[in-house]
Amino acid sequence: MSDTFIPRRDLAFLLYEVLTVESLFETDRYASHDHTVFEAVLDTAETIARDHFAPHAAVVDEQEPEFDGAEVRLIPDVKAALDSYVGAGLMGATFDIEIGGMQLPVVVGQACQAIFSAANISTTAYPFLTIGAGNLLAAFGSDEQKEKFLTPMVEGRFFGTMCLSEPQAGSSLTDISTRAEPTDDGYYRITGSKMWISGGDHTLSENIIHMVLAKIPGSPSGVKGISLFVVPKYRPENDGTVGENNNIVLAGLNHKMGYRGTVNALLNFGESGETQGFLVGEPHQGLTYMFHMMNEARIGVGLGAVALGYAGYSASLAYAKERPQGRHPDDNAPDNQPVMIVEHADVRRLLISQKVAVEGALALVLYCARLVDEKKTAKSDAEKKRLSLLLDILTPITKSWPSEFCLEANKHAIQVLGGYGYTRDYPVERLYRDNRLNLIHEGTHGIHGLDLLGRKVVMENGAAFDALQNEMRSTIASAAAEASLQHYAAALATAIDRINDVTHKLVAAREENIRQALADATLYLDTLGHLVIAWMWLKQALSATEAKPDAQGDDIEFYAGKLAACQFFFRRELPKLHSNADLLSVMDDTALTISTDAL
Amino acid sequence: MSDTFIPRRDLAFLLYEVLTVESLFETDRYASHDHTVFEAVLDTAETIARDHFAPHAAVVDEQEPEFDGAEVRLIPDVKAALDSYVGAGLMGATFDIEIGGMQLPVVVGQACQAIFSAANISTTAYPFLTIGAGNLLAAFGSDEQKEKFLTPMVEGRFFGTMCLSEPQAGSSLTDISTRAEPTDDGYYRITGSKMWISGGDHTLSENIIHMVLAKIPGSPSGVKGISLFVVPKYRPENDGTVGENNNIVLAGLNHKMGYRGTVNALLNFGESGETQGFLVGEPHQGLTYMFHMMNEARIGVGLGAVALGYAGYSASLAYAKERPQGRHPDDNAPDNQPVMIVEHADVRRLLISQKVAVEGALALVLYCARLVDEKKTAKSDAEKKRLSLLLDILTPITKSWPSEFCLEANKHAIQVLGGYGYTRDYPVERLYRDNRLNLIHEGTHGIHGLDLLGRKVVMENGAAFDALQNEMRSTIASAAAEASLQHYAAALATAIDRINDVTHKLVAAREENIRQALADATLYLDTLGHLVIAWMWLKQALSATEAKPDAQGDDIEFYAGKLAACQFFFRRELPKLHSNADLLSVMDDTALTISTDAL
Repeated sequence: MSDTFIPRRDLAFLLYEVLTVESLFETDRYASHDHTVFEAVLDTAETIARDHFAPHAAVVDEQEPEFDGAEVRLIPDVKAALDSYVGAGLMGATFDIEIGGMQLPVVVGQACQAIFSAANISTTAYPFLTIGAGNLLAAFGSDEQKEKFLTPMVEGRFFGTMCLSEPQAGSSLTDISTRAEPTDDGYYRITGSKMWISGGDHTLSENIIHMVLAKIPGSPSGVKGISLFVVPKYRPENDGTVGENNNIVLAGLNHKMGYRGTVNALLNFGESGETQGFLVGEPHQGLTYMFHMMNEARIGVGLGAVALGYAGYSASLAYAKERPQGRHPDDNAPDNQPVMIVEHADVRRLLISQKVAVEGALALVLYCARLVDEKKTAKSDAEKKRLSLLLDILTPITKSWPSEFCLEANKHAIQVLGGYGYTRDYPVERLYRDNRLNLIHEGTHGIHGLDLLGRKVVMENGAAFDALQNEMRSTIASAAAEASLQHYAAALATAIDRINDVTHKLVAAREENIRQALADATLYLDTLGHLVIAWMWLKQALSATEAKPDAQGDDIEFYAGKLAACQFFFRRELPKLHSNADLLSVMDDTALTISTDAL
Repeated sequence: MSDTFIPRRDLAFLLYEVLTVESLFETDRYASHDHTVFEAVLDTAETIARDHFAPHAAVVDEQEPEFDGAEVRLIPDVKAALDSYVGAGLMGATFDIEIGGMQLPVVVGQACQAIFSAANISTTAYPFLTIGAGNLLAAFGSDEQKEKFLTPMVEGRFFGTMCLSEPQAGSSLTDISTRAEPTDDGYYRITGSKMWISGGDHTLSENIIHMVLAKIPGSPSGVKGISLFVVPKYRPENDGTVGENNNIVLAGLNHKMGYRGTVNALLNFGESGETQGFLVGEPHQGLTYMFHMMNEARIGVGLGAVALGYAGYSASLAYAKERPQGRHPDDNAPDNQPVMIVEHADVRRLLISQKVAVEGALALVLYCARLVDEKKTAKSDAEKKRLSLLLDILTPITKSWPSEFCLEANKHAIQVLGGYGYTRDYPVERLYRDNRLNLIHEGTHGIHGLDLLGRKVVMENGAAFDALQNEMRSTIASAAAEASLQHYAAALATAIDRINDVTHKLVAAREENIRQALADATLYLDTLGHLVIAWMWLKQALSATEAKPDAQGDDIEFYAGKLAACQFFFRRELPKLHSNADLLSVMDDTALTISTDAL
C-alpha cells in the first residue's frame, strides 16, 4: 500500500498484546468472533485501502468536488472505492447482526478505519459519517426509522451526515436557529441552514440521511430546546425505494485547505419547498442524544488525526532510509560517500518524535475504542458507570491530543523530505493540510479544553478523574514490578500527583474568578494529554518487556523500538508536563486582561 | 490593504523608536536621506502592495504557473504588480546610487519587503531573488559584469535567481556536480542540473540572470572546489540588448504546497546547446562569496516568515473583533447576546501568542538589517568586525526562529477563524501553507542548528557569542534602571547565564563525541532563539516605557500592548528556555542510538 500506511505489526501489538482484545470473545456480544475473523477483516481492509483508496488520494485532492448546478461531481474513483468498501460489508462492521451488521468490536472497526484513513482520509470520511449517523439511529431511532433509514445505511445504500453547525453558530449550539414545525402528518417541517456539512450532497449513494439538530417552536431557549431529526435527501417510499426530493438545497460547497475530496456544504432546508424531518426519540433531547454518541465520533476524529500522522511517519521513514545525502560530523571528507539521511541525528530526532506521537496516540484511540466495547458488554451497572466515566474524561483528550501532536508529526514528516516534502509529488504535504482540520471540527481544541477542565474533571466530585487515575495507577503497579520500568512507573506517579495539585488549584480558583480559572483550559488539555500518552507508553513498554525474552526475527527490533520510544517520551516529552504545570499554576492573566485595543 | 498587513505604527515604532534608524543620517552613506524620504518610500510600498500585490495573492495561489511547452505562463496580475514595483524604483532601493539605486538603508528596504511579503509573498519572491543575486554581483562582479548584468537588474529589466541546489544535493553543497569548463573565449561552458530554482523561468523580465555554483574540472573536492558564475538566460549583446538563447532548458516545474505563485523549476544547463557562464571573482571562492551575501538573504527569509505570520495575526485579529459567538462562562444565559470572539480567553491567548511571535521576530529581523547598515557605515575595522560577528551568530536565529514560531502563529490564526479559517475564502490557510517553506529553503532548520552550535558559537573562541552577550547585557543595564522592567532584566540575565552553562557543556562534549554533542543542535537553535526574542521584547519594552508618559491617543494602547506582550513573553515563553536547557543538558542519546530497524 503506497508509502502511507499503518503497519499491521503495530496494530497486532496494540490489539492483541497491549489491549488483549481477544478477551472480548468471552462476552456474549462478541462470542461468535475469533482471532481469524479479526485478521481476515483487517486483511480485507488493507487490500481495499491499498487497491481502491490510496491510488486516488492525491488525485481527489487536486480535483476536488464541483457543483455543476445540478449535482456535485466527484472523480469516479471515489464511488468505485466506496463500492468496494460497501461490497465487503465494512459499512456494517460494528453494527448489530440483527440489523444486518457484522457486530465486530468497535476497536476492530476503528483499526480498519485507521487503515483506510491513512490511505485516503477524504474518501474514508463518507463511511465515517454514515457510521456515526447510523449509530445515532441505532441508539435512539424508532423501529420504523431504523427500518427505513438505518438498514439501508448498514447496507451501504444510503449515506449519512451530522448537521449541527450553522453559519452563525459553529461552536455555539445554543444559538442554532433551524426550526422544526410539527404537522398533523407525523413529520416536522424543517427550515434553516446548516454549515460545514461533510458529505452534505453527492451522488455516491442512493440517498443521504441527515441527522439534524433543530428547535421546535416554543422550546426552551438554548441547548435545552434542541431536538434531533432524521431528514432524508429523498423521502423513502414504504417499499424502501427512494421517493421524491425532500427540498434540501445545496447552497454552496466549501473549498478547504485539505480533506479536499470530502464534499463540505452549506445546505438550506425548506427553502424551495417542504423539507420533511422525523423526530428522533423525545423532543428537547437532541443534544443529549448527540453527546451520547459523540464519544465514538470523537474517538474517530482522534483516530483520523493519528492515521494522518502515522501515514506521514511511514512515508518519511521510508524516504529517509533511501535518500543519500550529507556525512557525519566526524567523518565528513568530501570524497566519502554520503550516508542515508536516516543516519543524521536531526533526521532521527524528527523520526522518533513522530514515532512517539503516532504510536502513543494510536494506543490511546484504540484503548478508548476498547472501552466502548467493554461498556457494551459490561456485566454490572457499576462497571458500566466506571467505563462511562473513563470515556467521558478521555474523549476530549483522545480527540485533541492527536489533532495537535500528530499534526506536529506531519510537520516533521515534511521536514525529513526537505524541498521534496513541500511538493505535491509526495504525500506528506497533503497529510499536513488534511490534519490541520482535526483541531477544528467535532469541537475545536479550545472547546475541548473547556469541556475537560470546566466539566469532565469536576463532574460527580471528580469521579471521572478518579477513575482515570485508578487505571493509571494499576499500570504503574504492574510496571513497578519490572526492574527496567521502575523509573518510568515512578515518573508517571509523580506526574499524576503534579497534575492533581494543579487541577485542585484550578478548580478551587473557579470560586473566585471562573474566567481566569478556565483561561488556560487548552494548555491544561495538552498537559493532561501528555500524562495520558505517557501512560500509554508505559503500557506499551510493559507489553514489550513481557514479550521481549521470547521475541524472534523482526520482533526483536520491534520491541526494542517500543522500549526506545517509551524512553524518548519519558525523557523528552514528559518534562513538558512539569513546565506546563508551572505555567498553569501561575494563572497568568496577561491574555485575559490586555485591552482589546492593545492587541 | 485587505486584512493581511503590517501596521505602519509598529514599523515606525521599531524603526524610529527601538532601532533609532535616523542616526544613520549622520553617516556619509545615508546622509542624503531623512525621515520624510523613509516615510515616502514606505507609503509607496504600502500603496503598491495594497493596489497591485494583495488583490491577486489568492488568485495566483489557485492558478499557479504553468509550462505550456514553450514558456511559463503566469496570470497577468503578477507582471502588472512587478511593473509597478519596478516603476517606483523599488528594485534599486538599497543599491548604491552610482549603479542607479536609491542607496536606502537595508533596514528600510527590509521594512518595504515586509509590507510586500505580507500582501503577497509569491509575487514578492521575484524582486527578493533579484536583489539577492544583484547583491552578489555588486560585491564580487567585475565592472563589465556589473554593467552587463547588474545595472539592468537594478533597473528591474532583468530578474535574478540563485542556483545552488541540485536534485541529489539540496543541503549538501559538497556534492554538487554542475561543471564549468573553461574556454579560450573568456567564458565557461556550464553543464548540469539545478533544482528548486525560484524564479527559474518566466517572461516577467527581459532576461533572467542566474547566479550558479559549479565546479571547474580539476578543482579540489568538496566545497573548496566550488566557483560562482553568472549565467544569463539570454546572452546580452554589447549594446545591452538581449541576444541569443543561452540554452538553459526548463526541465520541469515544482508544484508546491504554498508559495504557489513563485515559479520553482528544475533547470538543465548545456544540454541542448552551449550554456555560457562567466566566472565571478576568483575560482574556488564560490561558497565564500555566497556566504558573504547569505546573511542578507537569510535575514530576508526570516523577514518573509515574519510577514506571513504578521499577516495572519492582522487577519485573525480583525476577524475576532467582528465575529459574534458564544458567551462568558459566568454570563452564559442563552438569551444573552453572544459576545465577539475576541473576548474569549482562549481566542485572546491565540492572539497574544501570535503578537509576541510576530512583533518579537519583526524586531529581530529589522535589528539584523540595521546591523548590516551599521556594518556598511562602520568607521573602524574593529567596529566592522564586531558587527560581522553579531551578524554571524544572529543569522541562523533570524532565519530560523520566525520560520518555526511565526508558522505556529499562522496555525493559531487559522484556529481563531475556526472552520472559516480552514477554507480558501480567507487568507489564513494560504499564509500557513506559504510559511511552511521557510523551515526548508535557504538552509533547513536542522542545518542552521548545526551552523549555530557547530560553528557560530565556537568561532574565534566564542567571540561572536561574546559580542551577542555584550549587546544583551547593555540592554539589561538600561532596563535595570527602570523600576518596572527590573524583573525582566534580571530574568534575561539569568537566562543568559543558563544558556552559557549549557553551551559550555555542549561544546566541551564535542571532544568526546561530536555526533552526540551536536545531536540536539535544532533544540539549541530554538532555545537560543527564545533568548534573543526575549531580549527583543525587553528592548521594545524599554522604548515603550520611555515613550509612555507622553503618549497621546491610540499610542496609549499601543505602548500598553507592547508592555503586555513583553510580560506575556517573559511569563509564558521564556520559561521554555529553562526546560529546553534541562533537556539539552541531559544529552539524551535515544534518537541517536535507536537502531534504524527499530524506528
